[in-house]
Amino acid sequence: MIPSFNFTQIPHIIFGPGRLNDLYEFILKFGKNLLFVIGENSLKRSGKWGQIESDLDQKSLQYSLINISGEPSPLLIDNSVKEFRNKNIDLVISIGGGSVIDTGKAISAMIPKKDTIKNYLEGVGDKIHDGKKIPFIAIPTTSGTGSEATKNAVISEVGPNGFKKSLRHDNLIPNVAIIDPELMISCPQSITAACGMDAFTQLLEAYVSPKGNPITESLAFSGLKFMSKNLLRASSTDSTDIKVRTSMAYGSLISGITLANAGLGIVHGLASSIGGYFDIPHGIVCGTLLAEATKMNIKRLNYNKLIGGKALRKYANVGALIAGKNIADEENINDYCSILTNTLDNWIDQLELDRLGKYNINLEDVDKIISKTGIKNNPVSLKKEDIRDIVINRL
Amino acid sequence: MIPSFNFTQIPHIIFGPGRLNDLYEFILKFGKNLLFVIGENSLKRSGKWGQIESDLDQKSLQYSLINISGEPSPLLIDNSVKEFRNKNIDLVISIGGGSVIDTGKAISAMIPKKDTIKNYLEGVGDKIHDGKKIPFIAIPTTSGTGSEATKNAVISEVGPNGFKKSLRHDNLIPNVAIIDPELMISCPQSITAACGMDAFTQLLEAYVSPKGNPITESLAFSGLKFMSKNLLRASSTDSTDIKVRTSMAYGSLISGITLANAGLGIVHGLASSIGGYFDIPHGIVCGTLLAEATKMNIKRLNYNKLIGGKALRKYANVGALIAGKNIADEENINDYCSILTNTLDNWIDQLELDRLGKYNINLEDVDKIISKTGIKNNPVSLKKEDIRDIVINRL
Repeated sequence: MIPSFNFTQIPHIIFGPGRLNDLYEFILKFGKNLLFVIGENSLKRSGKWGQIESDLDQKSLQYSLINISGEPSPLLIDNSVKEFRNKNIDLVISIGGGSVIDTGKAISAMIPKKDTIKNYLEGVGDKIHDGKKIPFIAIPTTSGTGSEATKNAVISEVGPNGFKKSLRHDNLIPNVAIIDPELMISCPQSITAACGMDAFTQLLEAYVSPKGNPITESLAFSGLKFMSKNLLRASSTDSTDIKVRTSMAYGSLISGITLANAGLGIVHGLASSIGGYFDIPHGIVCGTLLAEATKMNIKRLNYNKLIGGKALRKYANVGALIAGKNIADEENINDYCSILTNTLDNWIDQLELDRLGKYNINLEDVDKIISKTGIKNNPVSLKKEDIRDIVINRL
Repeated sequence: MIPSFNFTQIPHIIFGPGRLNDLYEFILKFGKNLLFVIGENSLKRSGKWGQIESDLDQKSLQYSLINISGEPSPLLIDNSVKEFRNKNIDLVISIGGGSVIDTGKAISAMIPKKDTIKNYLEGVGDKIHDGKKIPFIAIPTTSGTGSEATKNAVISEVGPNGFKKSLRHDNLIPNVAIIDPELMISCPQSITAACGMDAFTQLLEAYVSPKGNPITESLAFSGLKFMSKNLLRASSTDSTDIKVRTSMAYGSLISGITLANAGLGIVHGLASSIGGYFDIPHGIVCGTLLAEATKMNIKRLNYNKLIGGKALRKYANVGALIAGKNIADEENINDYCSILTNTLDNWIDQLELDRLGKYNINLEDVDKIISKTGIKNNPVSLKKEDIRDIVINRL
């Protein structure tokens, strides 16, 4: 039976090569006093910021600019909000990777507030955000976090008391998401690989989530279909092929829609705790752990097939996709699960994803990581030793 | 390659048996001065209105009530709006079939205006609605039009100069859609059948639409999967089975989401023109024409397989679904297409869907019907004679 579910609103989506040009039509709907949040590197690479600046000037649109690098911290958000709180901003527009979009999303949500974002972060502060915000448009330049379609902004403080936590409210879903694969063509191969593994992880975790419903399941499967065929190509020989980049952009968008409604699993549980303690790119943590985590989930699901049958079949379906089939037949569930985990191992090798050790994560760090790791919406319960094994295998 | 596409926002969806209870939580978010639009018959049948009334009284919520029957006309909308325009309504809530939801949607959109809805109807008036409206919650009691997820309200004037046209704007998508299959249990078999055929037609037409994209395609296919297995059961022996009703409710919801983003085909083109001239339930027109229209589309697609290949494969996929497969293999496209059209013929027989003649539609009416019929987003171009054949076969 179809389970009871909620499905939150999604952004108005504008998708396709060259669609960045639609931005101005939306700007006119929201107002004329704009705040752009951009990731200098990605926009410089694509050569698009100069064009946007001259378009804005030509249309006599006022705008302010925040230029960021790295993942957003509470201090960055608080300082930006302080600067723009009294400037009557009509619309915040982020153009960049997941961090840039999360920064813009958090600023648009904090401008109407009078205190620090820390008070509103899950598991950090004790206030609940009420969803009031300045309208927000998200324009991704990577195919990674899917933040253009999610209701949360991930904010990190790195260090011994570090955290990686979310500001979250249904109403923080961007008003408009413009997904223009031309902006992603110039994304370097290593970043494409890490972001791609993040999006693929999100799709896979949302697809097998026990909180899923037929909408998230059919969408996640559609995203996995496009992404499984294009992830290696986008990260290597075919990085400038617009068809390949468009498929990746689609997978990433869908990963955001599905994670917002079905949740994520153990890989993102670990990415949250590891990302709080260590300065390691989110896509690398996800990518490097995905194969080991998937193997562990499949092993534990096999221990109790009565409960685990549906999730096993879903893992097998993804294996079948990779093998060029449409779906797994009931008799070959195990074979298709192996195709999936072998392929993930293979991707990690070919994409040369770093092991955790490269970021000074050592055996003695594992216990403190695990003590802060939640399994979220993992398809099967895992013991501490299981989670430990996943991490140790990728040190 | 994935085509460029727009995907409009969807309502905040609350789905599942018993979820009508979530209504009060949302009412508190929007305000306390409520206008209910209900279909007396359907709510009396389900016995739910008495309960809602007493809940509203207990919570000291003020409400006004519009009780309607039949499909909404411009006069009904204009008169209702006149009555409530100056009453500071905070929220319009429709509980009923497609007509009731369209009535509430139109009233919520027309309260901020000062003139007749006729001025804003596509192909009738020359004004364009700006999307400003009173917040609106849609609660369907049938599994039919999917109006709980669409951006248009269909308004009809029946007669020699009749029309069946839409008030349409992206912002008219309901703010919240509460889909509670318990409200549908008491829907009579004949209405269940007609509404079910409407929703199935919408899913099939959106699925094969050339305007589709991977989101609409994967969602429509998911809706077709649930609906193809449950349509006959819901309309006969298993009409009180909540699992069956839940599957139908899901299919109907998805039909609304997908038609809003991929459009519809020749069956709905004909439903629009026929519904303008004749007083015939929308679900009957769609259902009675669907098999003939699908046969004609498949025939014309086969004439040019180079262009028609993708749509033929989609029709075959639906045939495969019906045959218990997951998808059609390339070698058996024609066989699966036949399974689809034979099944549609069979459904029309078993559900005893009226022929058009029953509503006094005769051979001499066909030309005027066809002169007002657009083929919308049909997967293949049809000649006037083709459309004539579809209609004549169901007189």
